[in-house]
Amino acid sequence: RQEGGREMAAWARAVRGLLLDVSGVLYDSGGDGGVPIAGSVEAVRRIKASGLKLRFCTNETQATREKFVKKLQGMGFDISVAEVTAPAPAACRILKERSLRPHLLVHNDLVPEFAEIDKANPNCVVIGDAAENFTYANLNEAFRVLIGMEKPVLISLGRGRYYKETDGLKLDVGAYMKALEYACDVQAEVVGKPAKAFFESALAEMGVPPQEAIMIGDDIVNDVGGAQRCGMRALQVRTGKYRPCDENHPHVKPDAYVNNLAEAVDVILQQL
Amino acid sequence: RQEGGREMAAWARAVRGLLLDVSGVLYDSGGDGGVPIAGSVEAVRRIKASGLKLRFCTNETQATREKFVKKLQGMGFDISVAEVTAPAPAACRILKERSLRPHLLVHNDLVPEFAEIDKANPNCVVIGDAAENFTYANLNEAFRVLIGMEKPVLISLGRGRYYKETDGLKLDVGAYMKALEYACDVQAEVVGKPAKAFFESALAEMGVPPQEAIMIGDDIVNDVGGAQRCGMRALQVRTGKYRPCDENHPHVKPDAYVNNLAEAVDVILQQL
Repeated sequence: RQEGGREMAAWARAVRGLLLDVSGVLYDSGGDGGVPIAGSVEAVRRIKASGLKLRFCTNETQATREKFVKKLQGMGFDISVAEVTAPAPAACRILKERSLRPHLLVHNDLVPEFAEIDKANPNCVVIGDAAENFTYANLNEAFRVLIGMEKPVLISLGRGRYYKETDGLKLDVGAYMKALEYACDVQAEVVGKPAKAFFESALAEMGVPPQEAIMIGDDIVNDVGGAQRCGMRALQVRTGKYRPCDENHPHVKPDAYVNNLAEAVDVILQQL
Repeated sequence: RQEGGREMAAWARAVRGLLLDVSGVLYDSGGDGGVPIAGSVEAVRRIKASGLKLRFCTNETQATREKFVKKLQGMGFDISVAEVTAPAPAACRILKERSLRPHLLVHNDLVPEFAEIDKANPNCVVIGDAAENFTYANLNEAFRVLIGMEKPVLISLGRGRYYKETDGLKLDVGAYMKALEYACDVQAEVVGKPAKAFFESALAEMGVPPQEAIMIGDDIVNDVGGAQRCGMRALQVRTGKYRPCDENHPHVKPDAYVNNLAEAVDVILQQL
């Protein structure tokens, strides 16, 4: 095990901005609500008071940013919609740039994010964590739209394997993405972590280059590995979906471990 | 394009047994029923009259063999349960041999095939073409059983991508297998075509070595490619799921093409 404080000393002084994952770092999700992780509300306040740039970088696709931010504000977090980088708005930019008209297989609560996108006569499929909308009929329908294209275009809002809610583990969008990829012999374009373009847009919105930014997340592959491939440093918190076996991951090694966001902020602010 | 008769002359004389795929070769499926392909009922009779050994080799997992055979008899085919090699009985043999207790994610009509298998306290998951049983809840449940195992064992009854029914294309078991494989970071064991062991058991039941057997199927990968990897010759019929682009398949080339089963039988019987 690496020790947060000692290992970070060498490089944390250059930090000018932080990217925070949300679920599993700020709060634990479950059912319709969630519970803040101890010390996280205060930790966000301390980051903002420190003068460091801050951006929330989430793969959340079960709600619009507005609804998602309202939930976090309700838990006491100092957060606004303008501070959130999320897959759906990033996907909308891509759809507009490439004149793509999506067939949506997403959560009902995410649909408003695509309000201004032309969805008639679809020429691509966008898949998110559709949860209860992942029915046999909806999966067959998305498949038929894809297989009917001369060159199928599948855009996936993240590639997570699974996540935990209060009533147990749930398959995440990545599993359904793989099903459609296999059936149509196509490779999905992933929008969201760990895609490089997604981290880069979060950095651009914050105005900080990768070597001066730290990603803090609970997901060894999507948060830590993705950020490191962009040239950022990355810490893994031991909250949320963290599991002890992550510390033996064959490919990804965080720049440091911290027990939670509060400890991460302690250590980072000490270096400034 | 290869011509059936000419190409086959050189090797078809050695043939002593035929393996026939069923759906797309004998009949076209759809909804609750199906329609025999022109000439197929008579072709099966001619094979039996010729003295050639015959075995039906199917990946059908939406019904017990009893129900499946009854449907084919109803269309006029001379077929009995004892002549059918299907994934569920093959899976049952594996489950017994390895003391595996399955959690089943299969079609309701297939469940009786597993009647004699201990299913308490499952230590593996068996997935078939569950069709309407591929619900969000059932997929999450199968996933939770798998991810809860120290070493997840996933047995898949086939690995088809999709198939066609009268009301359109449907995702096949392979797509859902891929979803679970990805979520659990595990590789499924495939029982059924194109698995080598499955063809070998069909050959053993027929008592014919691979070099003296011909597989006739509509699926370029699962029928033709699978049989050829076992040392058999294989013909592709231009019925069922056959598509003209199959004739440019990058890896698999049938030993000959025939327009349908009736033509295959014509050509083979001419060589004897």
